[in-house]
Order: sequence, then structure tokens, then C-alpha cells
Amino acid sequence: MVAVRTKVKEETLDPQDWDAMRALGHQMVDEMMDYIATLRERPVWQPLPDEAKDHLREPVPHEALGAEQAYEDFKQYVLPYPMGNIHPRFWGWVMGGGTPMGMLADMLAAGFNPNMGGGEHAGKYVEEQVLNWFKSIMGFPPEASGLLVTGGSMANLVGLAVARTTKGKFDTRKEGMQNGHAKMVLYASAETHSSVQKAVELMGFGSEALRKIPVNDAYEIDLAALEKAIAADKAAGYHPFCVVGNAGTVNTGAFDDLAALEKITRREDMWFHVDGAFGALAILSPDITPRLDAMQRADSVAFDLHKWMYVPFEAGCVLVRNEEAHRRAFSLTPEYLKHADRGVAGGSSWFSDYGIQLTRGFRALKVWMSIKEHGLDKYGRMIQQNIEQAQYLAELVKASPDLELLAPVPLNIVNYRFTAPGKSDVELNAINTEILFRLQEHGIAVPTSTMLHGKYAIRVAITNHRSRREDFDLLVDQTLRFGREITAG
Amino acid sequence: MVAVRTKVKEETLDPQDWDAMRALGHQMVDEMMDYIATLRERPVWQPLPDEAKDHLREPVPHEALGAEQAYEDFKQYVLPYPMGNIHPRFWGWVMGGGTPMGMLADMLAAGFNPNMGGGEHAGKYVEEQVLNWFKSIMGFPPEASGLLVTGGSMANLVGLAVARTTKGKFDTRKEGMQNGHAKMVLYASAETHSSVQKAVELMGFGSEALRKIPVNDAYEIDLAALEKAIAADKAAGYHPFCVVGNAGTVNTGAFDDLAALEKITRREDMWFHVDGAFGALAILSPDITPRLDAMQRADSVAFDLHKWMYVPFEAGCVLVRNEEAHRRAFSLTPEYLKHADRGVAGGSSWFSDYGIQLTRGFRALKVWMSIKEHGLDKYGRMIQQNIEQAQYLAELVKASPDLELLAPVPLNIVNYRFTAPGKSDVELNAINTEILFRLQEHGIAVPTSTMLHGKYAIRVAITNHRSRREDFDLLVDQTLRFGREITAG
Repeated sequence: MVAVRTKVKEETLDPQDWDAMRALGHQMVDEMMDYIATLRERPVWQPLPDEAKDHLREPVPHEALGAEQAYEDFKQYVLPYPMGNIHPRFWGWVMGGGTPMGMLADMLAAGFNPNMGGGEHAGKYVEEQVLNWFKSIMGFPPEASGLLVTGGSMANLVGLAVARTTKGKFDTRKEGMQNGHAKMVLYASAETHSSVQKAVELMGFGSEALRKIPVNDAYEIDLAALEKAIAADKAAGYHPFCVVGNAGTVNTGAFDDLAALEKITRREDMWFHVDGAFGALAILSPDITPRLDAMQRADSVAFDLHKWMYVPFEAGCVLVRNEEAHRRAFSLTPEYLKHADRGVAGGSSWFSDYGIQLTRGFRALKVWMSIKEHGLDKYGRMIQQNIEQAQYLAELVKASPDLELLAPVPLNIVNYRFTAPGKSDVELNAINTEILFRLQEHGIAVPTSTMLHGKYAIRVAITNHRSRREDFDLLVDQTLRFGREITAG
Repeated sequence: MVAVRTKVKEETLDPQDWDAMRALGHQMVDEMMDYIATLRERPVWQPLPDEAKDHLREPVPHEALGAEQAYEDFKQYVLPYPMGNIHPRFWGWVMGGGTPMGMLADMLAAGFNPNMGGGEHAGKYVEEQVLNWFKSIMGFPPEASGLLVTGGSMANLVGLAVARTTKGKFDTRKEGMQNGHAKMVLYASAETHSSVQKAVELMGFGSEALRKIPVNDAYEIDLAALEKAIAADKAAGYHPFCVVGNAGTVNTGAFDDLAALEKITRREDMWFHVDGAFGALAILSPDITPRLDAMQRADSVAFDLHKWMYVPFEAGCVLVRNEEAHRRAFSLTPEYLKHADRGVAGGSSWFSDYGIQLTRGFRALKVWMSIKEHGLDKYGRMIQQNIEQAQYLAELVKASPDLELLAPVPLNIVNYRFTAPGKSDVELNAINTEILFRLQEHGIAVPTSTMLHGKYAIRVAITNHRSRREDFDLLVDQTLRFGREITAG
């Protein structure tokens, strides 16, 4: 026995009074449930007053304020000023809103708090199960691999990293892109999400290496232009290694012709990655399933669960058909991370071998509990409901002589504008910009905007399980109201 | 007015019975509080039985099981089989455990659920405030920039990406590494965390470009070897652009001579990045502050809040001294993400312009509420407590003739092994491997392992606010017990 023993009064961050912390937790649950249940009664969005901004600029507190005060500050300065995305009339960008169960599951995840980088513990099996569920949903084989990630940006990055190591003609991890090999180039439509370009830049390809192929009138990739670009690059001595297909573009919800892209990539021995950030999950809607047939044969597919699975941020997913290729792109195991045969460092595979993060949170739990709560079929109905709401809104727009639909509505995104006789596009752009600001500032609704062929579009992306048709009635009414006020003014 | 109106019964994922969901939330709060308050009474870790594994391999449920059943499944198949890191006697890898407030704050974050990619809402101000707090803690100027990220891997990646665009002699985002420019190379000690190599590989430098510089007996970077490597690379026509310094290495907690690295990088016009995954926060301990003086002048610093700030996963942070350089490395704003002057798309700066993620969760809230709960000074005391616990354990090891300390203990990491007369290193490696398995499998404690100069080390990394000195007494007692059992057997 060793001789050294001392008695020291040690501190902890656990509460001194567990009952008080428990009571605070109950209060938080009650007030958040009230908050969510009554969302519809409040403005979608409102600006922060200066008092709140001032509080949120105070220097770091050195002394304890206590748990209750920390929560009071949250209620006073944060909770009244949401982004709005959990509200029934938020349709900005492409966002989900979360659910009460998602909220509670994130509490359990943070309390249980496993490090999902690896090791042998229940969390690992939960994430593997969730991944297996999504493999079956997306038509990937059970031996495929996957990873839950922070979102679509990371899912695309992981997919492209696997594409590089797999299709590279040299050891890309060791030699990198600096050794004078034939320039690797990849292809995606001009409507592809900016996260693909960001990934290409980060990976050292250079944005020049991303060939942005024009789209047709339906905002789908122009296949002839793609074929021509590949042929030209090959003739110039470049190495075309990957095509990114879109399952639901961010501007209009368009689907590229995935079957054609699959055929081209097979013929050219290229990687076929599908960015299905929200559109991939539309596979759960019987109307859309046929359009996603070829996605099920892609080499990798990226999609979000915090969009059209409605779980709270953050939860994205990437699936890779070839598990070995996936692991080869990321696995790196120094001594201090050595996997063991027994104990907590056991486990046949570590998630950190399949992506960028080593430490990883338990984002699988909210997905796991949400799917158990509602069953997968309900998610199919909710997605279908959003698609039908988009059709409904498109019909409202078409039925109004003062509104103009600016793009086809193949999925859940509606682009429209207010029009007025004799106004130029430039004038209409200004009018519709002002309409959008007023819709937001009056707390009525939050669409966002995009530009389509030089026309400013009020853009409504519906991945919201709280929206009802009456909400779109209101949107149209208020668009017309503001449009008439502005043009009369 | 438009004419189309229909009445459709629409579904939602919100509960039909809010009171039942509220009651379930109360139950979860109570049971998680009990679980955390009684951690010490349970084994640190235990293997999953086959029954749990079988449940966690079931196919996706198509029908609803309901919220209560989802929680029951969590309690039955997940909660009993933790990784162990929230337990007082977990010292594996480098992990934090979280706190009850961190758990509750993550619930609030998931309920409120803003997308922290950008826009004008309270969440944005909370993260900016948290970043400002850490700028002041790390001695960075208020005009510096920063970002909360998933953890140290991402923080290092972001720092290195800014280093590349800033120190690159061409447009690295546009041209990438494929255009035949002088090869960019960077330097870090052989003890540097694997996430740096992963970042270097992902970014297309190739792992060859990461010059791993040997260390001295204290596991600190060998400065003469570094100088020599830089000179040799310059002579060979390469472009040395960055040095990564360690503030707390993962194996032993060593600090590189940051002042010397700062001087070298200034002279050579190189980027100075500090990986302070856990060590950077030791700046809050007066004993350590002087060693981190030069970190305050680094170009970028990466650190985790889910390690030595004890918040639940995931929360890392990267600070970049030059805001404009940071933005230039990542900003990319297509039409559908255009920042606006007014409304929800307003806000002078968007976090998505400073990193890889576009959609971002509200990880700032748990940090904000935790610091308010306890005050910053308490975190300094907790970190100091862990450092003193490491010294205490080192003294216990040194006081025992059957134990050997395998490395200096400059911070919070203790590497030791059981020894026995006449045993070779190979034999001792096997004995200590078995000791470690038994410590874990008996649920007593979770250290992990590393190899130091061919010797298998039981490695104890203390970033645990629940550990007490008596826990290290137990660790030593049980190490000796298992060691003697094994060598006697």
C-alpha cells in the first residue's frame, strides 16, 4: 500500500442542491412545452430590442450567478427573439423546426453524453441502428457504411473525400494534390448547393476544378453539356473523377436526371455522389420514389435529418456504398486511440474512422427516439403533406392575377412574386424585396428570397410539420396586401 | 382575393396530448438527475448483454410506438450501458463529462432550435458573446474572430484552412493545390494530435507535407530540428507556411515552447497555430498561465469546451486573430443565402462565413448558461483541482515500488505502469494491458493506454469535475491488486 493519503475538500460542478436543479428542470420542461404549443399565437420573428443586445454584450461573469439566474437570463433575453424556424409560418432557406420529443431526446443525449467517436457502449449500437435504418430507406445494402454528421455540408464533404481517395490514381492522402498529377476535376450543375464548392475548395482541388454545368428550363443539369465537358477535360489531360447529382436543388427543388448521371459515371469510371440534403428523404413519399430510383445505386448520398425529418439541429447523414472505401478515406489510428479487443476501447469499428470528427455527440438518439415515437410511415405522410402544400400554394399563386409563379414546383419549393402592370423587372425586384421585409417584420411569415433569371423571387421552402393550408392562404393574402400598399404608395 | 380554399385535415409531429408529453419530460428530468447523482454507486463501464444488442439491431419501425415507449427503450437498452465518461473514475483519452445544467441547456437549445448559420436573432448574439468571452480569456483582441465548432478536430481544420488562404502565394481557394505551385509544407511535433494530420490530408496537402519534428525528453518539440527542417525545405524550393504548436499534448500533456515557435514563425512569415484542445483552458490556472503567454499572440488557437470546460458534447472553439483572414478563407454567399439589410436574413456577420457548416446548432447556449451558473473563476479552480489531482496520482505512483511513472506530468496526464522484478518490457506490456482491461471490466476505473518509448502506459487524463483524491487512491490500490494477481498467476 502506498503511504500518501490526504484529505482535501474538493469541488464539483454538480449541483449542491439536487432538488432545486430538478425543480428548475421541471420548470424548463413546462415553459418550453408552453412555448412550443403556443407558437402560432406569436409573431414568427421580431427584432431584438437594444436592452437585449446590451445584455448580450456584457463581459464574462467571474462570480457565480446560479442556475436559476442563468435560466432567467435565457427567458428574458433569448427566448423572445427566435430565428422563427420552429413557427408554423417559417419557410425560409430549407430548415426543420424540431419537435418536443427531439428536444427531450437532446436532453437525454447531453445527460448520458457518450463520446460517439468510438468504443464499446450502447450509443455506438444506437447510431449503427439508425444508420442501418437509413440504408434500408435509401435502398443501400446492409454492408454499406454511413455516418451521422452535423449536416449537409459535412455529408457532402465526406462523400467527396471518399470519392477522391477511391478514384484518385495515386495515394491522395499521402501525396495530396501537390505532386503534379493530372488535375482532378468534378462536375455538378450550376444549381448545386454552395456547400459542394466549399468542400472542393477546402479539399484543395480549387473551385476551378468544380465544373459548373448549366441547367435546362426545369433547373436540371444539362446532360449534353455535361458529356461535352467531360470529354473536353479528358482531351485536355485532366482526370474527371466525380459527378454530383442533385436530389432537390435548393433554389427550386429540382431533381437532376439521376439515372442518366449514373450511366455516365459508370461508363467513365467516376464516383457518383448525390446531394439529397432535403430531397433524398422524399423517397418516403410514393409520388417521388420513382424519381429517386437511381439514387439507390449512387456511390454516396448526403442528406439531412434536421430538415425533412424535422429533428432539432444538428443531424445530417452520409451513406457510402463501399464501406472499405469509406474507411480508407479517413481511418487514422495513433497509439492513444488504439482500438482494443476488450473493455471500453473495444468495438469492431469506430465512427472516427469514417469522418473528420474524433469526438462526436449523441445526435443519433433524437433520430432513434423520434422514429420510434411516430413510426417511419408518418414521416412519409408528413413529407407528402409538405409537397401537397407546395402544390396548394402554387395553385393559389396561379389563381391570382397579381402573382406570378417564377419556377416549376417539382417538390416543396415555391418561387413567386407580386406583379403590377407596366413595372419592369428592376422595379418588381424592389417591390418584392420590400414585401418580403414586411412579411418578416410584421411577424406574419418568413419566406426568404432568391434570384431566378434576374427576377427576385419570394421563395417558400416547406419542410415544416406545423404548417397548415390556412397558413399559405394568409401568406398569399398578406403578399397581395403589402404589394398593393407598396405599389399604391 | 384568391378563390382557392380547401379544408384538409393536416397532421403534425407535435403531441396530441401536451400534458402527457409534459409529464414524460418531468419523468426524464427526474430520472436523469437520479442517474447523474448516483453515478459513483455504479460501475464506470459494463459490456452490453446480447439482449440489448439484439434490440439495437431491429429493423426500422413503420408504426408509431409512442413517446413513452421510445423512452422506455432508452432506459432499458441504452442508459445502463454508458461509455463511462460521466463517471468520477473515468480518465480515458481526454474527455469531459458534462453537467446537469449542460444537459438542461441542451434541451433548451433543441427546443428553441435556431439555425446558427446566420441571420438576426438572439442566438447569434449569444454565440458572439461566448466568443468574446473566450477572446478575453485567451488574450485575443476584441476585433479577433472565432467560431464554435464540433470539437478540436474541426477547430484545427478551420485554423489550418485560414493559414492556407492567408499564407498561400496564390489564390488557394480558386486554384487549389493542383496548379504546380511550390509545395506548401507545415510543421508540428511528432506528439501532435492525429486531427492535424487528418486536416492536412483532407485539405489536399498530403500527409507528406506535414513535417513531424522529433521531441525532447519532455515530449516538447525539438526546436533545433524544426529550424533545420524549415531551412532544408526552403533550400529545396518548398513553401513553409505554418507551424502548429501544442498547448498540452495528448500523450503526456506537454507544452511546446510556444514563445520560441512564435519567434520562428514571425521571422519566417509563417502562420502560428496552437492546438490547445484541452491545454489552452489551463490558462485559467495561475500555475499554467505563464506557459501560455505566447499562445495569446498566435494567429489561431483551437480548444475544446467539452473537455476542460466540462460541457456536454459537442463544443469546440477556434479563435483567429485576423477576422478578415478568417472570413476570406470560408465566405461564400450564393443568392439564396444573401444577407439582407433588414428582417431575419439581416445581421452584419454570418457564422457560416467563418467555417464549414452552413446549418449550425445552438451549442453556444450550454456554454453561456454554464459560465453564468458557476462564474469563470470556478472553472479556474476546477482545472487547478484536476492538475493537483494529477500531481497527487504521480506522487502515489512514485511512492510505490511496484509502480513506475513513465513520463513527466506537466499538466493533467499521468502515464504509469505496474512493474515486477526481472520482467522485460514486452512482458510488462502484456501485464499492464491485462491490468487495464480488468480495471475497466470490473467497472472500477477507465484509464486508457498509450505507448511511450516502447513501454505500454496506463494513461490517466484528468478532465473530470467529479473525481476526488480517493478515486486515485482506489485506482492505485486496484492497479497493484490486479498486477500482483496477474504476476502471481
